[in-house]
Amino acid sequence: MTDRDSPGRPGGFSCPVPLSRHAVVTLAHGGGGTIMKRLVDGFVEAFGGPAPGDRHDGAVLELNGGRIAFTTDSYVIDPIFFPGGDIGSLAVHGTVNDLAVCGARPLWLSAGLILGEGFPLDSLERVVESMADAARRCGVRFVTGDTKVVGHPGCDGIYINTAGIGAVPPGVDVRPANVRPGDGIVVSGDIGRHGMAIMCAREGIGLETDIESDSAPIHGVVGRILESGIPVRCMRDLTRGGLAAALSEIASDSSTDFIIEEPSVPVNGQVRAACELLGFDPLHVANEGRFVTFVPGGMAADLVRLMASFDPESTPACIGTVAGEGTGAVTLRSSLGTRRPMSVLSGEQLPRIC
Amino acid sequence: MTDRDSPGRPGGFSCPVPLSRHAVVTLAHGGGGTIMKRLVDGFVEAFGGPAPGDRHDGAVLELNGGRIAFTTDSYVIDPIFFPGGDIGSLAVHGTVNDLAVCGARPLWLSAGLILGEGFPLDSLERVVESMADAARRCGVRFVTGDTKVVGHPGCDGIYINTAGIGAVPPGVDVRPANVRPGDGIVVSGDIGRHGMAIMCAREGIGLETDIESDSAPIHGVVGRILESGIPVRCMRDLTRGGLAAALSEIASDSSTDFIIEEPSVPVNGQVRAACELLGFDPLHVANEGRFVTFVPGGMAADLVRLMASFDPESTPACIGTVAGEGTGAVTLRSSLGTRRPMSVLSGEQLPRIC
Repeated sequence: MTDRDSPGRPGGFSCPVPLSRHAVVTLAHGGGGTIMKRLVDGFVEAFGGPAPGDRHDGAVLELNGGRIAFTTDSYVIDPIFFPGGDIGSLAVHGTVNDLAVCGARPLWLSAGLILGEGFPLDSLERVVESMADAARRCGVRFVTGDTKVVGHPGCDGIYINTAGIGAVPPGVDVRPANVRPGDGIVVSGDIGRHGMAIMCAREGIGLETDIESDSAPIHGVVGRILESGIPVRCMRDLTRGGLAAALSEIASDSSTDFIIEEPSVPVNGQVRAACELLGFDPLHVANEGRFVTFVPGGMAADLVRLMASFDPESTPACIGTVAGEGTGAVTLRSSLGTRRPMSVLSGEQLPRIC
Repeated sequence: MTDRDSPGRPGGFSCPVPLSRHAVVTLAHGGGGTIMKRLVDGFVEAFGGPAPGDRHDGAVLELNGGRIAFTTDSYVIDPIFFPGGDIGSLAVHGTVNDLAVCGARPLWLSAGLILGEGFPLDSLERVVESMADAARRCGVRFVTGDTKVVGHPGCDGIYINTAGIGAVPPGVDVRPANVRPGDGIVVSGDIGRHGMAIMCAREGIGLETDIESDSAPIHGVVGRILESGIPVRCMRDLTRGGLAAALSEIASDSSTDFIIEEPSVPVNGQVRAACELLGFDPLHVANEGRFVTFVPGGMAADLVRLMASFDPESTPACIGTVAGEGTGAVTLRSSLGTRRPMSVLSGEQLPRIC
């Protein structure tokens, strides 16, 4: 959607899962899989949301002759302190990243805190310090906020909502509708760190790993890519549901089919080992500092070189191509050349991952 | 604050209540009283917030040669359905109203839903329908959203965060710093309905009352006031902590003292009776569709007449004056002419009121 005067498509909202079978909210409704997608599609319909090809992790809106991006996320992660980050910095990075992949330069954040009665004040201090510090590092400002406290059993710690506003530079137009057959698909680095870091931290698993979350802001790198002259069709950060959910969503929203070369998808050795041990597929594991970019096929190698030049330790990779117009099918090709449809989770892999 | 480049005043955040005495979050930290104010002042300091005279329920920011207002609120009200409204419409009205009292025309909302595992899907349908319906009535659009699900004991139902963006018309400048000695203070209608409606609904009190929440959007009336030519110094909607909290905040932020004529404060008979029975002071009881406006003293009667002309059933009233420069003291004058300082709650009157 581009402005408030464009015709909305408001309609009645009905939950997409038959009431007779699942009359209550389940963890699967928040898991980033197909059940959540059907719920969210219902919200989008009720609220008169944008056409699929215009869908982002945020909205791009016309105002005062320019364009802004507007996005929101609530963070309910458990545990709130984890290897590589905490809920405070995550709440900054996640929303900054959603703005970045709309093509926007992040400017301002809001903070909506819900605190559980009994939450330790020293933990609150650590979280607020972390939010303020992350915002400073990202060059954004918290400009408005709200605090609520709920008694038992309403909240078991702290939930943080951050909404964000960014400015979309003239000429930038990244969205699923721009994806074209022949485009290359580039992932910004190795996947699955955030999810496996949380998994190991939460379960107190005795794995001897040093896996840290990849939680980090991506707007700096995204900004340099957009300024590089390489034409960017679409971008998406990888969060709940992992790379698989992001690819499936973009394929569906752009009515194209993708082929992904499975051996090209970068996965850190420790993450791969932990996934194998615990039965996870890295494609489905959450990230908080990785994103996927669609560019014309001939430019994919240039984009990978450019991204590697920003950070020699990063492992960007071209992982596949847009095969043609289609219905949103994503096919994985193995090292032996065999093909299989990429699975998408229906429900919940790991609750409260972000 | 007016733009992202103005110098922030970031500092370390430390909880304002000594850790040795209150090492955990208490309901009082969210009650709208002085304990909450000290916590929020700590956040504002940590995030480099605005000077007191520029404080609103939202932020006013310069963008593309114009000004926008940006605000956020989380809604955790219990029960979620109450006489006169529900959490869905409340989440629209509350944020629309915060934008309105910044002087802004509300445009766009975000929706951040946190759902408890086990929350009935038919209740979710009612809430989402109510959000969509309230947005349509207010002429605003939900343009972006997020859904999280938490398992027991993380959330006992539904929490909704709405952030909002509005456009501030040229020439509009309403903020505490503009309040001047001699200004008149006008309240838009009778106070205390929302809090007493929730109180009666929650406790299943056998009071034979028909008290309904005043939950309603105020941006239409505010817009007509701003267009009327009556110079508006400052506005504030009355929510947690009631009229008393709003007056105390504005007096403090504008470094002036107020005198309030207690008999002039409009209170509905049923609300007054319920307050007396239950031991509440209507000045402290929450509202969700009332606001207070500061105008030059000579214009207060004009403003009351104008507001009454919009809605013959409304009961706007001039309730006092800005006595002079000062330290934020608010004095109540009784019908006998006796004076006493207006009390402000330190903590919690009624948890989860909004």
